[in-house]
Amino acid sequence: MTQGKSWEALAAQKREQLAASLPKEWLVPDELLPPADQDDITGWPAASGWFTAEELRITESTASELVPQLASGALTSVAVTQAFCKRAVAAQQLLNCLAETCFDRALETAAARDEYFARTGKPMGPLHGLPVSLKDNINVKGLDSTVGFASHVGDPSAADSALVAVLEAAGAVPYVKTNVPTAMMIAETVNNVFGRTINPLHRGVTPGGSSGGESALIAFGGSCLGVGSDIGGSLRIPAACTGLFTLRASGGRFPVRNCRSGMPGQEAVMSVNGPLARTLDDIEAYTRAVLDGQPWLLDSKCLPIPWRPTVEIPKKLTIGVLWHDGVVRPTPPVARALKLAVARLAAAGHTLVDWDPIDQAEGAHLLARMFVADGGKTIQHELDRTGEPLRPEMHMYGTATELGTADMWKLHMERSTFQGKYLDRWNAAGLDALLCPTIPFNTVKHGMFEHVGYTGVYNVLDYAAMSFPTGLVVDKTIDQPVDVEHPDYTPLSESDKKVSAGYDADTMHGLPISLQLVARRLEEEKVIGMCRSVLAAISDEPKANGVNGH
Amino acid sequence: MTQGKSWEALAAQKREQLAASLPKEWLVPDELLPPADQDDITGWPAASGWFTAEELRITESTASELVPQLASGALTSVAVTQAFCKRAVAAQQLLNCLAETCFDRALETAAARDEYFARTGKPMGPLHGLPVSLKDNINVKGLDSTVGFASHVGDPSAADSALVAVLEAAGAVPYVKTNVPTAMMIAETVNNVFGRTINPLHRGVTPGGSSGGESALIAFGGSCLGVGSDIGGSLRIPAACTGLFTLRASGGRFPVRNCRSGMPGQEAVMSVNGPLARTLDDIEAYTRAVLDGQPWLLDSKCLPIPWRPTVEIPKKLTIGVLWHDGVVRPTPPVARALKLAVARLAAAGHTLVDWDPIDQAEGAHLLARMFVADGGKTIQHELDRTGEPLRPEMHMYGTATELGTADMWKLHMERSTFQGKYLDRWNAAGLDALLCPTIPFNTVKHGMFEHVGYTGVYNVLDYAAMSFPTGLVVDKTIDQPVDVEHPDYTPLSESDKKVSAGYDADTMHGLPISLQLVARRLEEEKVIGMCRSVLAAISDEPKANGVNGH
Repeated sequence: MTQGKSWEALAAQKREQLAASLPKEWLVPDELLPPADQDDITGWPAASGWFTAEELRITESTASELVPQLASGALTSVAVTQAFCKRAVAAQQLLNCLAETCFDRALETAAARDEYFARTGKPMGPLHGLPVSLKDNINVKGLDSTVGFASHVGDPSAADSALVAVLEAAGAVPYVKTNVPTAMMIAETVNNVFGRTINPLHRGVTPGGSSGGESALIAFGGSCLGVGSDIGGSLRIPAACTGLFTLRASGGRFPVRNCRSGMPGQEAVMSVNGPLARTLDDIEAYTRAVLDGQPWLLDSKCLPIPWRPTVEIPKKLTIGVLWHDGVVRPTPPVARALKLAVARLAAAGHTLVDWDPIDQAEGAHLLARMFVADGGKTIQHELDRTGEPLRPEMHMYGTATELGTADMWKLHMERSTFQGKYLDRWNAAGLDALLCPTIPFNTVKHGMFEHVGYTGVYNVLDYAAMSFPTGLVVDKTIDQPVDVEHPDYTPLSESDKKVSAGYDADTMHGLPISLQLVARRLEEEKVIGMCRSVLAAISDEPKANGVNGH
Repeated sequence: MTQGKSWEALAAQKREQLAASLPKEWLVPDELLPPADQDDITGWPAASGWFTAEELRITESTASELVPQLASGALTSVAVTQAFCKRAVAAQQLLNCLAETCFDRALETAAARDEYFARTGKPMGPLHGLPVSLKDNINVKGLDSTVGFASHVGDPSAADSALVAVLEAAGAVPYVKTNVPTAMMIAETVNNVFGRTINPLHRGVTPGGSSGGESALIAFGGSCLGVGSDIGGSLRIPAACTGLFTLRASGGRFPVRNCRSGMPGQEAVMSVNGPLARTLDDIEAYTRAVLDGQPWLLDSKCLPIPWRPTVEIPKKLTIGVLWHDGVVRPTPPVARALKLAVARLAAAGHTLVDWDPIDQAEGAHLLARMFVADGGKTIQHELDRTGEPLRPEMHMYGTATELGTADMWKLHMERSTFQGKYLDRWNAAGLDALLCPTIPFNTVKHGMFEHVGYTGVYNVLDYAAMSFPTGLVVDKTIDQPVDVEHPDYTPLSESDKKVSAGYDADTMHGLPISLQLVARRLEEEKVIGMCRSVLAAISDEPKANGVNGH
């Protein structure tokens, strides 16, 4: 507890505690670290000489590659866990992506998995022996869940969250918790306790937020499968910023009980958690494993819908295309990727229809109003406990007016009407999915994030949505900036102009380009299956008479 | 719209409009009506001579008996619909149970069903040609949904609700909407527009509320299958008061879109709708029909969970028994029925465990706090539009203090914690179901209703719950009142004493005794199946060494 300490003292105490939890033998010596001017450090682990060949082989594998080896005894959970722990420590040194570690518990759990396998000859479950990283808000017994607030320093969780129980029953091994922005309500990852998390693909840009500790860690190879959360884009934004896959499931599929919320009790839009990983197979494996663990028996907010293997994916999809949301246009690389994806999907025989952005601004505005319906009081209360200042990125929480419950009920009605209208329009168009940007850019330089509208509307709707890397990367020779000073340039909004002006082709060059695929509420199996179809179409480069997308 | 009219003028206008909508040829002549001092009028239709033998045969059939005859062409939808319309008119004359009629639309729809059958040789759907009555809040195009407020008089719905669309697609025929209490927030059925609805089993007692127009109509034979709604017991209470079956499904199974709420936008506890009928088979038939109609495609609040025929009902159930809720003890007949049910369930080999009432008062209190979180403003606003007075039964809405959204979020957290605690306790006990009173009595004299705690806790928990008639009736020679003046009598609460003192064996004599069966959230198929097991055990009267339950 805070015991009258200042936020600065608590933050310093927390950072020291985290630093002290990193075993000395895993700390990379300064002389092995990459030079400060090296932007992309994803290649550093392999080049550094710090990791053994076996450690590199393990940590550069996907979850779906590791699980069969763990389940057959070809790899031990202790070896795999140790390798990821060691690489996570390096990630922390370079990216400031961790919030908590529980290496001792992890290695004990791993040893128990190995013992179980030795004794029974069988894996414990579908994630047998696999280390899984967790966002800071997912309670693990004995660890803090500060979620970026100094006031939560030194207030360890009394029990594991329902999700940890389900993951452990599936055989997984929790080993670290990852950094988040204050209250998980900033689209980058920065707070007054741990500071800022860095993107390993380019250290000058953000890994996104709020699950940016996860995205940075996974993109660096310090985890192959992690869990984040999403209330306005907090899974999809960091996934897009680092070229990862993620699934923002509808509320009620993944358990949320005994997770710490940034705004506890806020229910007008539901916070959900979900996986981040480098492959779609890993996203599916996680989803199956958690749903088959019957989380509804532990969490009354969960729906008794197990993984549905019989959901059929139409061979020929009808896909709505949201070219822009009427508020902020995608930057040139994202626009190019969307155009190319649409052309290749059409070439593969899918039906593409333009999706009118008419409702998008209203949806984004509804989200913002729901976030500050308490006038920012809940967040301010946490800050006041230690005198911690409100971060400038959270300006809107400092200026909002609290609604009374009667007005909150009216806001609920507006949101329900919006949901109904969107569903009607979706049905009338006969859509299977919607394809659109996840964010208007690949990522941005630290502190420059603008506009969560592309993701946030699907939180308001509670739709199943994925962010996926297209396999395309920014090419500065093609993806030329728009000239916002040109007399013909007309921005859609102030944000639109900021985003266009902020696009820096040199910095973005080589970074992955992601898109978002959306299905209706609770169509998680379908959106995963459709993502497979979309990826197949995009990667199917036409041989002749080809469409090159630009 | 109200156009500046007084509430009295609007109410009078509405009553005249309803009366004028009853075709003269179906109005029972005064001389055929039962004498004013006849309490039980359920036998009157058969004895009156007003109905043809065919009309009686139809209206005394259950839905499950009628549907096969409709589906085979043995009965026409027009004949069945006309018979129920005529009997509903008599019900209105005697019970004041209707709010709206749409006989013309009903007969047109019925004719279309018959035409469809003649043309295709097939039924339209699982409710082919069956008239279904609807609670007043379920929007039907062109009809008002006053829900007891004068302010809503003359404001007809622009469109059918999602539920009506699903029911019509299943072949059903809407023909009347039924009376409710103001805002549907009283446990009897009385409002300033239509007045009070009467119980056909005894005209001196309430049919319950808020779905009391439905329960009265069905108990009288003016409908065989009706739809009510439930936010604190509004399906189960009227079902218990009239000896009907009902299912209070968890939120998200039955569609609610474009239904009028008494407190629009209130979401801390969800209002749901569901069927009322005279048999369990009819409840199951309705549930299957609506779920197989894929309501989630029309209503984003619906879950894509079709009827699950594969849900297994354990042969031997583990049933928790809530003998009383720690606040109000059941009256003697209800206590006797519960004791007998428990004994026969045990004799049938089921496991019965006592369920500690420790959490019940907290649950009931949470519900009350959520109902008035807006300080009663939403309801007061509707009243203010026409100067309508707040009914005395709704005192709590007139004295409540509005919560700000920050405090509302805290209340959400309290509720979620309560849900978690209850689920843990349920799991620890290994329960399949909980058996308890639906209400502390069979019913009460008009104006005497007290305590919705037995039902309301399961709204807070969003559990699947049924009220079912045990087959037992009050026997004044056995069910003797408690002497509340006896020195040894210690009430659990003020309400407890009122309920005990208010029990009048003479009035209750012969009335059906109902109980409540509860399963976890979204276990609708299971609770229906378990209700079948419970009924089988209760009706299985022991031949020797029998348990007589008292």
